[in-house]
Parts: sequence; structure tokens; C-alpha cells
Amino acid sequence: MIDKEFALSCPLPVTHHKTVVLGHGSGGRLTSQLIHDLFLPAFDNPTLRKLDDQAVLEMDGARIAFTTDSFVVTPLFFPGGDIGKLAVYGTVNDLAMSGAKPLYLSAAFIMEEGFSIEELTQVTHSMAEAARTAGVAIVTGDTKVVNRGSADKLFITTSGVGLVPAGLSISASNAKPGDVIILSGSIGDHGMAVFSTREGLEFESAIMSDTAPLYALVHAMTQAGEVHVLRDPTRGGLATSLCEISSTSNAGIEVYANSIPVREDVKGACEILGLDPLFVANEGKLVAMVAESSADAVLAAMRRVREGRDSVVIGHVVAEHPAMALLKTEIGGSRILDLPFSEQLPRIC
Amino acid sequence: MIDKEFALSCPLPVTHHKTVVLGHGSGGRLTSQLIHDLFLPAFDNPTLRKLDDQAVLEMDGARIAFTTDSFVVTPLFFPGGDIGKLAVYGTVNDLAMSGAKPLYLSAAFIMEEGFSIEELTQVTHSMAEAARTAGVAIVTGDTKVVNRGSADKLFITTSGVGLVPAGLSISASNAKPGDVIILSGSIGDHGMAVFSTREGLEFESAIMSDTAPLYALVHAMTQAGEVHVLRDPTRGGLATSLCEISSTSNAGIEVYANSIPVREDVKGACEILGLDPLFVANEGKLVAMVAESSADAVLAAMRRVREGRDSVVIGHVVAEHPAMALLKTEIGGSRILDLPFSEQLPRIC
Repeated sequence: MIDKEFALSCPLPVTHHKTVVLGHGSGGRLTSQLIHDLFLPAFDNPTLRKLDDQAVLEMDGARIAFTTDSFVVTPLFFPGGDIGKLAVYGTVNDLAMSGAKPLYLSAAFIMEEGFSIEELTQVTHSMAEAARTAGVAIVTGDTKVVNRGSADKLFITTSGVGLVPAGLSISASNAKPGDVIILSGSIGDHGMAVFSTREGLEFESAIMSDTAPLYALVHAMTQAGEVHVLRDPTRGGLATSLCEISSTSNAGIEVYANSIPVREDVKGACEILGLDPLFVANEGKLVAMVAESSADAVLAAMRRVREGRDSVVIGHVVAEHPAMALLKTEIGGSRILDLPFSEQLPRIC
Repeated sequence: MIDKEFALSCPLPVTHHKTVVLGHGSGGRLTSQLIHDLFLPAFDNPTLRKLDDQAVLEMDGARIAFTTDSFVVTPLFFPGGDIGKLAVYGTVNDLAMSGAKPLYLSAAFIMEEGFSIEELTQVTHSMAEAARTAGVAIVTGDTKVVNRGSADKLFITTSGVGLVPAGLSISASNAKPGDVIILSGSIGDHGMAVFSTREGLEFESAIMSDTAPLYALVHAMTQAGEVHVLRDPTRGGLATSLCEISSTSNAGIEVYANSIPVREDVKGACEILGLDPLFVANEGKLVAMVAESSADAVLAAMRRVREGRDSVVIGHVVAEHPAMALLKTEIGGSRILDLPFSEQLPRIC
């Protein structure tokens, strides 16, 4: 076992690992190492180096956003959603986080021999409905089947393209001191919905995934004011997104623990399981850094959209402690937020 | 067991299958059923309905080609290539088959816990080299890890975008009677290279995969004359591509068995294994339908490009027997080419 405290202060380079571990897919420190030590040096180019959740490309005068995500969630169906809905909304949201209007998706299916056609049909119809809701068309695809035992039922990889309006420049590298940090609603719902279904845990009320398409919300925000950064805090949760933004922008971040909404049932489930909701995945929320001068207008606009009706200010970008995200606690303390070393909830998306 | 002859003449709808079988990923009849019975009705839109290997989209005045493919080949390394090279060239070639210049790729990795970091590094470097060779940049990606036994080592899904030059309209639906059918070289190399490695078969010479990027060849062709249809005959081989084109274009196709080049070692290996090279996968070949008036110029241009130096005319598009592809044999007979029902070589790409 690697000592966690040691690893946090002095992460091992990926080449010191002989094999892939679950943490390499956590979205946390090990994923970051894999990207920085292996993928970035090999594929090096200025677009990839930005480490946004999507690439924004200039193509024959058009500004095209382009993104991809594989979905390996288990179980395939959970309260509030399924792998199909997740695969559509997840990719739509990665496009929207650049300000792009999502337009077209591809869908590639890897299926295990013996997977139920009935479940495949359900997932397909769920994807179709999600695409209609999000206003995108699934225009190309692929189907592969591997022999029994070589995959777990169904994996879906969606990619997407969208159009970034002229003048918009939204990136994790754009946080500026003074920016107001806004969160669009409660955190931890998706992760706890999937995890409690998988583990057969029963709480007083069923926790529902928050999976939802976020472009309508983003559009309202960019119309209302000056948005610098947008992230949907999926794998690794809100804390991971804040760490990444503070690091990529080389800016200090301060958020206030008592301002971050967590539903009572999610809080209870997290307590029982020893999980921190700050690090639990969301699939229908966004965190934004907005210019101070237009923060009120953006917040008001967000609250008028269904997916943003519970939006709140949770903190500020500061000139102090660049590249560090701090959580201010109720009793006046400060906690440094750091990328989780490995995987607290595997296969959550 | 379903009787093969019965199935060919009267395929069962996909809903009659209770579970996914290997043939659903064959690229043959069962894949086609899955697409026609499930994906097309659910996702229905005019672009998807064209059933090309890529979507061509009008985005803010730019003509964007967009495609995706998952790669599940086993073994990961084989003579002439590996899963990384395949994942780059496969997607680059699907873009090129619309006449598009491939520009940007995404790469999504699904890895099994315990997969070797050394092999991952090899694959990553191979992808990087292939991207440089093909002149594309890998600009966005994703990494997921599933627990041991839930995937077989490594699956890669690449998607790609490229630009279609103004005036070009190349589609499997554009074959016209009179068109000359040109094949860019020998068939069956890739499938037999992977299969013989996997099964530990040794032939006198090692059969090498033909995996190669085809945009340079396509560019030379579109500069030289009027190209109506382009397909890279991957899964399902040349015969499957010809069947699909004749069906999508509602045109008759006639090809001459003795004009289709097959390397001696590939022919020998196919004979030993009871396989038909017409149905074996290629990863660096294309078949084209070209206007009769410019066929000589296109053929000459192809032969000047390395990937097309062995190009030959193999047949013609005819006004007779629409939607049917015929193979004319040496002794004057005719054989109807039909989609393979199921999978002759699973996990070949």
C-alpha cells in the first residue's frame, strides 16, 4: 500500500505503477498523473494542453467544440436515470461548458455477448429521448460485441460537436481574482443514487440522480453576463473541479462550507458511508466563475432556468494563495482542497 | 441454432433475439438488423439514415465530417500494428471516405484494472506516431478503469472531425451505372494477420496487417477525377462493402473474381482455415466507384501514391439487377454476394 499522506505531498510518477489501478479512472490525482506523465507528452498539442473537458477548434471559420466520454456505470439503471441518459447528457454538458450549443453526437456501443436485447432497447430509447430533450441528433455510431466475460454488459462512448458563439471564451484557465463562484444546486445526488442502488442500500427516500442537460442554463448565463469558467463537477465532485480550476488558472479559490447545498438524505448517506459529498459525482450541476460586475445578473438568470433554480454563490476567486482551493468552515477554519488520490466510488459514470 | 440458409433469405428481426450475440458486432447481417430494427428507428434523422461511415454536417458554413469507432481487437499487438495504430487510422480513414481531410481526433480509453502500464505506454506512443503520420492532432480524451474481469485489458474509442472540401459529394448512395470499381490493393491481410497471431498459427511468412492512413490516396483521387463512392472494407471485408453500396445506391454491382488481388500467403491461410478472403477485414485499403470518363486518370493517380500502388479495376456498376452485387467467376459463373449472417472472425478491430 502507498501511504496516502505521502502520496498527496509527493505523488509517484505513473511509470512507478506497473499496472493500471481503479484510481487511474477516478478523475483524481492518479488520473491526472496518467494524463500529465503519459498522454500529454505523447499527444502534445496546444488544444490538449488546456485540459478543458472539450476542445474548441477553428474549422473553416466555424468555432467547433469537440468532446468525448466513455460511460461504464454500474448498475446500468438507477433512480433518476440510466447509462443511456448519462451518455447523452454527459457529452452534451461537456460541450456546454465551453459555451457551445451542442448539436450532434456519435454513439459507440461495446456490448458483452449475452447482454439482454431488452435492456439494450431500453437504453437506446432512453438515449433517443435524452437527445430530443437536449436538442441534439445522434448522427453516427458503431457497434462492437466482445465474448462473454470480456466486458461487463454494456459500455457506451459518446462524442459530440457543437458551435461556440463568436466572442465567447470560457475555459478552466480563465478564473480571475474577484470572480464570484456560483454553484447551480445541491451536490452529491448522482454519486449517491448510483452507489446506494449498487450496494442495495435503502435510505428513507430514494436518492435520485440529478442527470440533466445544462445548455439552456449556460445559454441564460452567457446572455446575462460575463462568464469566465464553467465546469460540471462529475467524477471527483465539486472539490476536484475547484482544484483543477485553481491550478489551471493559477488562481486562489475560497468557498464557504455552509453555503454549499447538500440534500439531507445525501448528507445522511454520505455520513453513514464515510464519504465526503464534496468529492461525490454530479451529472446535472455546474460551477461557474463569473465577473463580479455581472454576478447578480447571472445568478438571477440562472434561477429562472429549471436546472439552475437552486443556484447560490459559494465563494470567490482571490489574489492570495494562487493554485490553491480553500474551504472555509463554519467555525472559521480553512481546509485545503486537494485532488482525491484514488477512487472513492468506482464506475459512477 | 438458426439455419443459415433460412436466415439469409429471411432474416429474423432483432427483437427475436433475446440476447446480444457475437454476430451483432460482425458488421454483417446481424449488425445491420440491429441498426435497422433498433438504432435507426430510435435515433431517426436524415444524416444517420444515409448509413455512411461518417456524418457530413453543415456547421456555420463549414462542412464537417464526424465519425466514431470502438476498437476491441485481440491481441492488442500483431504483425504490422497494434490497437493504437488501428484506432487512429481506422477513424482517419472513415473521415477520408467522405473526401474529408481528417484534422482532429478524440481518444477514450476503457482499461481493465491490472492492465500493464508498459503496454499502455506502448499503445499511447503508437497512437501518437500514427497521428503524426496521418497529420491529425488528438485534442481531447477520456480515461475509465473498470474492475478486473469487467473488460479485456484495453478498449479504445476514437472519434474524429475533418473538413469536406466544397463541391465534393462522396457517399455510399452515389454509385451510378457505368461507374468503374477500383480496389486499392490486395485484400484480407489485416484479418489474417490478427487471426493467425491470436490462434498462434505459423505460416511460411508472417502475414502483416495493412493498417495505413488513406487520406493522401483519397486526395490524389479527388484531384484526378470524379469519385462517387469510397469505402474502406474493414469488418466484413470487400464483399460486405460491395453489398452495402449496391443496396444503399440501389445499383447493380459486378466484380471479377480473377481481378481481385489476394496475396499468396493470405490465400493459403484462408484455404487452411476455410475462410473467404472476400469477407476478411482490411485496414489500409479502399474500394471506389468512379465516373467512367475519369477512371483512367483516377487509377493512374492512385498508383502514384504508396497506399494505392497496387490499385486495379475490379468491376463495374451496372443498370441490371439493382441492389445486388455479383461476383463473376473465372469459369463464367456468377455468385450473389450477400452480407455474412454472423461473425467469421470476432474482435478483429
